[in-house]
Amino acid sequence: MGTKGLRTAAKVSLDIPAAEQPCLHNRWHPDVPSAGTIANNEVVKIECVDWTGGQIGNNDSADDVKNVDLTKIHYLTGPFDIETAEPGDVLVVEIQDVQPFQDQPWGFTGVFEKANGGGFLDELYPKAAKAIWDFEGIFCSSRHIPGVRFAGLIHPGILGCAPSPEILAEWNRREGELITAHSHLDRDVALPPNPTNVHAGSANASLKEKIGKEGARTVPGRPEHGGNCDIKNLSRGSKVYLPVHVKGAKFSVGDLHFSQGDGEISFCGAIEMAGVITIKFSVMKGGMAQLGMKSPIYVPGPVEPQFGPGRYIYFEGFSVDEHGKQHYMDATVAYRQTSLRVIEYLRRYGYDDYQIYLLLSCAPVQGHVAGIVDIPNACTTMGLPIDIFDFDISPDKPAKKMDMGACAKASS
Amino acid sequence: MGTKGLRTAAKVSLDIPAAEQPCLHNRWHPDVPSAGTIANNEVVKIECVDWTGGQIGNNDSADDVKNVDLTKIHYLTGPFDIETAEPGDVLVVEIQDVQPFQDQPWGFTGVFEKANGGGFLDELYPKAAKAIWDFEGIFCSSRHIPGVRFAGLIHPGILGCAPSPEILAEWNRREGELITAHSHLDRDVALPPNPTNVHAGSANASLKEKIGKEGARTVPGRPEHGGNCDIKNLSRGSKVYLPVHVKGAKFSVGDLHFSQGDGEISFCGAIEMAGVITIKFSVMKGGMAQLGMKSPIYVPGPVEPQFGPGRYIYFEGFSVDEHGKQHYMDATVAYRQTSLRVIEYLRRYGYDDYQIYLLLSCAPVQGHVAGIVDIPNACTTMGLPIDIFDFDISPDKPAKKMDMGACAKASS
Amino acid sequence: MGTKGLRTAAKVSLDIPAAEQPCLHNRWHPDVPSAGTIANNEVVKIECVDWTGGQIGNNDSADDVKNVDLTKIHYLTGPFDIETAEPGDVLVVEIQDVQPFQDQPWGFTGVFEKANGGGFLDELYPKAAKAIWDFEGIFCSSRHIPGVRFAGLIHPGILGCAPSPEILAEWNRREGELITAHSHLDRDVALPPNPTNVHAGSANASLKEKIGKEGARTVPGRPEHGGNCDIKNLSRGSKVYLPVHVKGAKFSVGDLHFSQGDGEISFCGAIEMAGVITIKFSVMKGGMAQLGMKSPIYVPGPVEPQFGPGRYIYFEGFSVDEHGKQHYMDATVAYRQTSLRVIEYLRRYGYDDYQIYLLLSCAPVQGHVAGIVDIPNACTTMGLPIDIFDFDISPDKPAKKMDMGACAKASS
Amino acid sequence: MGTKGLRTAAKVSLDIPAAEQPCLHNRWHPDVPSAGTIANNEVVKIECVDWTGGQIGNNDSADDVKNVDLTKIHYLTGPFDIETAEPGDVLVVEIQDVQPFQDQPWGFTGVFEKANGGGFLDELYPKAAKAIWDFEGIFCSSRHIPGVRFAGLIHPGILGCAPSPEILAEWNRREGELITAHSHLDRDVALPPNPTNVHAGSANASLKEKIGKEGARTVPGRPEHGGNCDIKNLSRGSKVYLPVHVKGAKFSVGDLHFSQGDGEISFCGAIEMAGVITIKFSVMKGGMAQLGMKSPIYVPGPVEPQFGPGRYIYFEGFSVDEHGKQHYMDATVAYRQTSLRVIEYLRRYGYDDYQIYLLLSCAPVQGHVAGIVDIPNACTTMGLPIDIFDFDISPDKPAKKMDMGACAKASS
Repeated sequence: MGTKGLRTAAKVSLDIPAAEQPCLHNRWHPDVPSAGTIANNEVVKIECVDWTGGQIGNNDSADDVKNVDLTKIHYLTGPFDIETAEPGDVLVVEIQDVQPFQDQPWGFTGVFEKANGGGFLDELYPKAAKAIWDFEGIFCSSRHIPGVRFAGLIHPGILGCAPSPEILAEWNRREGELITAHSHLDRDVALPPNPTNVHAGSANASLKEKIGKEGARTVPGRPEHGGNCDIKNLSRGSKVYLPVHVKGAKFSVGDLHFSQGDGEISFCGAIEMAGVITIKFSVMKGGMAQLGMKSPIYVPGPVEPQFGPGRYIYFEGFSVDEHGKQHYMDATVAYRQTSLRVIEYLRRYGYDDYQIYLLLSCAPVQGHVAGIVDIPNACTTMGLPIDIFDFDISPDKPAKKMDMGACAKASS
Repeated sequence: MGTKGLRTAAKVSLDIPAAEQPCLHNRWHPDVPSAGTIANNEVVKIECVDWTGGQIGNNDSADDVKNVDLTKIHYLTGPFDIETAEPGDVLVVEIQDVQPFQDQPWGFTGVFEKANGGGFLDELYPKAAKAIWDFEGIFCSSRHIPGVRFAGLIHPGILGCAPSPEILAEWNRREGELITAHSHLDRDVALPPNPTNVHAGSANASLKEKIGKEGARTVPGRPEHGGNCDIKNLSRGSKVYLPVHVKGAKFSVGDLHFSQGDGEISFCGAIEMAGVITIKFSVMKGGMAQLGMKSPIYVPGPVEPQFGPGRYIYFEGFSVDEHGKQHYMDATVAYRQTSLRVIEYLRRYGYDDYQIYLLLSCAPVQGHVAGIVDIPNACTTMGLPIDIFDFDISPDKPAKKMDMGACAKASS
Repeated sequence: MGTKGLRTAAKVSLDIPAAEQPCLHNRWHPDVPSAGTIANNEVVKIECVDWTGGQIGNNDSADDVKNVDLTKIHYLTGPFDIETAEPGDVLVVEIQDVQPFQDQPWGFTGVFEKANGGGFLDELYPKAAKAIWDFEGIFCSSRHIPGVRFAGLIHPGILGCAPSPEILAEWNRREGELITAHSHLDRDVALPPNPTNVHAGSANASLKEKIGKEGARTVPGRPEHGGNCDIKNLSRGSKVYLPVHVKGAKFSVGDLHFSQGDGEISFCGAIEMAGVITIKFSVMKGGMAQLGMKSPIYVPGPVEPQFGPGRYIYFEGFSVDEHGKQHYMDATVAYRQTSLRVIEYLRRYGYDDYQIYLLLSCAPVQGHVAGIVDIPNACTTMGLPIDIFDFDISPDKPAKKMDMGACAKASS
Repeated sequence: MGTKGLRTAAKVSLDIPAAEQPCLHNRWHPDVPSAGTIANNEVVKIECVDWTGGQIGNNDSADDVKNVDLTKIHYLTGPFDIETAEPGDVLVVEIQDVQPFQDQPWGFTGVFEKANGGGFLDELYPKAAKAIWDFEGIFCSSRHIPGVRFAGLIHPGILGCAPSPEILAEWNRREGELITAHSHLDRDVALPPNPTNVHAGSANASLKEKIGKEGARTVPGRPEHGGNCDIKNLSRGSKVYLPVHVKGAKFSVGDLHFSQGDGEISFCGAIEMAGVITIKFSVMKGGMAQLGMKSPIYVPGPVEPQFGPGRYIYFEGFSVDEHGKQHYMDATVAYRQTSLRVIEYLRRYGYDDYQIYLLLSCAPVQGHVAGIVDIPNACTTMGLPIDIFDFDISPDKPAKKMDMGACAKASS
């Protein structure tokens, strides 16, 4: 019986340089040595460093971002051999969870210097900048951007299978052509293979040299395998369908993001972090032909946050009536008490009770059976939609009595 | 080709007394004469009066509610014979739309007098009261309950097929037993058959007398057919599976609600209205056995409102750059402009541009391709989540410059 | 008391050529004569023809699309003078409803011929094509694309205020430069002013000539006023903030869409229709400066459809117990019955009752108080999430008994 | 800088009997000694055992459930003194995360024996039963209930502040009256104070004896403080407003649930687990009067799961065109490629390309800018709604070519 927790397929250290850890690598190449084997239909945890391998610190200067060494990125964990995977198959990757390390509850967002990386708006904003984000449970906030706090749509920025030699050659051809065609520009239009600071996992010296010369950089994403696609919605529960181009698939993952906006516009724009991703792997034999697939596809998971609190205030009622009498498991009494709690709450704004009674009958309140087994109290709840009011009824704001007129009454 | 609009299976008049309209009736009985035939898989419109048949007026007194005649309710439209339906089948009712009459854009919510109808909280609130609601498109508001406005989750309060004679007898038996057992109470515990003000559609005098003596009242809902179930989520797009107990199903519908809260606690608590319901009928042969069905089931539709506005502010950008240069269908330029619009917007609160640039990169902004075919302007949008800020950034509130500190910068 | 329905600010006819109707026009120009005045904070209905003014028929040939005359489009309704609006203000447009005409329940989607309009993929798909869509309540389906049906996210494709003379001149300058720069191409890169088939509302001949020479075409959207932005989410309940450039704002609207995908990629790609839009207008004085606004912004409404049915099956229960005994308004009995209905339903798949009992306790079922005032039956519902099962439990599919093993039992 | 992780306010052991751990207790009483102090506005982690304190095992027999000792439950962690909290204040409890222990990835659901605990349907289902659930990231599944898997709406079943002596006396009075009134029944209607197996944290013998005689049982929830309310939606991000009745509030929490259905009908019905809850505490001075509060209220958090996967399939496209040419950061090219990926996917069902081109234009596809900074590839996505099709297009199902007719074409 599986009572012991999941297997961790690769562990990383935040105290050892990334370049010295054999389960990491920073180029896409079919020959990067395997970092381990994963069974078909297995669920494993995979640890990841942040994409810069620790170049950025939790401090108040952006000098580290300004001087970041972009030949060293992105440190990916893997590649992993997935049993039974063959070229032409599809590797189905279900992301079952992503978490920061418990003792590393922070991340960073950077604007690169125009001369070193740049970004989407670098003509207007050429200077390096940085914000540190603190994690508290599912939320994050930053001392560098006050007034903001939200739940992370946590996800990996990069995942994919290794290219075949043919695909790698095609990447180098077409990106090389682009570089040649734009050689007159003063900015990089693509990043060619570069042996400087290549990390090829456990490769020996000669293999490392080969990978340095041929290996594709981890910037950008590419259609044949996905890779650095930076899709913010690849979060908990998502299922990604990845084309397999080499035996064993050679899957790698990294560049974990606590959150990202569409476009990741400042380039180093997500909330970058180190952490753990839990993945279920399964192989769809012959999947590429079956799906007519040229690029990865995915189905988002069931838990995308709303980025705001629920828009209801919920009130509780129990089967103790307004005279203090205890009833036995009576949901009708409980729901009546719940209604009274809402009436008392709204009365504070100047409504009379009949107005509220009418309102609770016709506005879209949510009436739920909450607990109906803990003798002798049934518990019901009523959710009052915040947004039907044109003033703020949230409990954090003091209530002010207003002139609320009156509903129609019968003559007496 | 179906270019002429849908057939209206029954039309009602708001100028003629409900009791004189042969397509209406106010008791459940297998012998109420058919108001028309509907084909299997047909979509029709059915008009409905409000449940009181016009007893309540758009005015500022609740005397009409206090004195409402409850022997006259609910006026249902039907019953309709559905072709091929037989006992044991399931009638699948897809609610394709519900609308108030265009020239009757209002409804009402009432609290009944304790002595005439009462309600959930009548021991605390024994007096009659009323609120009139005005409809503006999908929204409603009331001069009697200021400060409130919301989109209606519009639905029918009552729908169902006629009982068989056996089921009708069972209803009368078990509710009669309850009445007998509680005859010492000073309040009604159930409503027995009552010939007063019975309306049996086009029935002749003797049939009408029989229906008056035997026919089940439209209060309450009952497990065998649903009926007056007052489920607020039976809205546009919902599919209801109804047991069929008599040949032709004899389907009736009425008691349209612009909105209702769970429980409809004041009894006449929904926003009651007259209007039109559009329904697709289809028959599932032998469905009751197949579904193991004792009571109706339903699947909600795709358009339940959130009861609040979207929690994003969307900004537009076009492929005209900040120097006034027109680009041809360039979504990248458009998205850059969209980003700048958000930066300009947030700058008003005291953030510096780099803080915002960082924020847009990592907060869960939604970046959409809006229009990409109207030459020469691509249009993209960026949705900024309102709720990530701890102050109100909505455009209706004036912006106040605050001290927002600074992000980390590089030394120069 | 507002019991008579909303004012219709402009009525159109589908039987008279669009070019002959004075409340329509097809160019953006500050001098198009007013089609009427609307008060600040007024809610009105505005009727619109389809954007081609009736050039496309409900038939099975795409010849009309192939030969569509693009100098005649888009016929917009307006311009309307909004009282108190001045340049520098923001016009807040709340879309309270959009509906097709009741007797015109259909729309069309077209692919333009590459040589006459083209579109996003015209190099691959150069031929004209067309699909007719039939509307049934909130849903649409097409005989030309079987297997598809969905709820419309209904919206206007075009809305905006008139440009000032200065803005109009800037549009003509920058788009003219683009045309000049690309004059060697064999395709249009922008549409310059064109007097052919200009419709300037009620303008006299000389004014019409001026508008023909100077007036901006309705393709594309432009940053200064929005216009043809084709944003699919500007649906019911949305609020759009539009910059005002001329006295009275001169607001126009048209190009109603029953539905559209992001990008509207085939150019005539939305489901184009004639119909009625209900709008509330309000003026935010000095709003442009206050919002730092260069382009429109909007907040989506509360009723975006899910494009699929709800993912719960709801079961009903009433306060009649399994022995046929009638209880009085007992929500606890009703909820117990509701639970039993679900057990009976799931039993059909081979689960034993204890397995289901356990499942209903811990899976995220939704328990609602539905009706609690219709004596003597309380009605509760339980929503069973469809997606927690790895087989299809929807009522439309026959149930198949499977081997479901057993839960843990106590020894006896 | 907060880089070290959050403080754990109380640690528990799963290897030591719960009754021997001083930070646990199983009765509500104002005199249970404090388990620690928490600052106002502090965020802490609190560890919890499962509610039975380890009485239930991960095995295939329900004997442990049958024989569970209900005098030993529920083991709560606390009570904690919250600095500055005084009677009349409101303690605002923001649940920032709930997680099972990493090495204890399982939980259980039980049906109690009718003679020992019983439950909602015990007249029909009197025997003990059990299901073990395995956790994989956010999902759970059970070997005892095959065919089911879902994301947990994880939450605490019990949280609240200690009662004052007066409130405790009132509880004992009213529940005692109920017991007296029903003493003729053969079933428990409420659980009176019971010294057997009382655990009063670090209390000495005499205090423990007092708490045993007077302390309220943890079944049921009660209106004055909430307690055992079993509200399934008190999940990540929820904010609960709790009345404070004693100095320091004396907050306790426990009974963690991986998931629960409304009603928790089998009594031990949630997926019970041990784990860690992360809470932010803040004190609202004088909050009870300000909120007119008699019972707790709450606002749900931003991350309630949908209990099904997203209903869109997302396709990726990059700025490499169909001729293999690499474009530089061109989102328009990328969106065109994305469109083609969807066309290729849907072509497999028998649609011709023009039908799909039309469909993508008008159906509510979601077009997103995904990554726009990783040179040279812009990445866009298009989300195709699964539910607009009346057949299953999900990638897990093989595609079958069907006769899909044709759209309207132009004559040539």
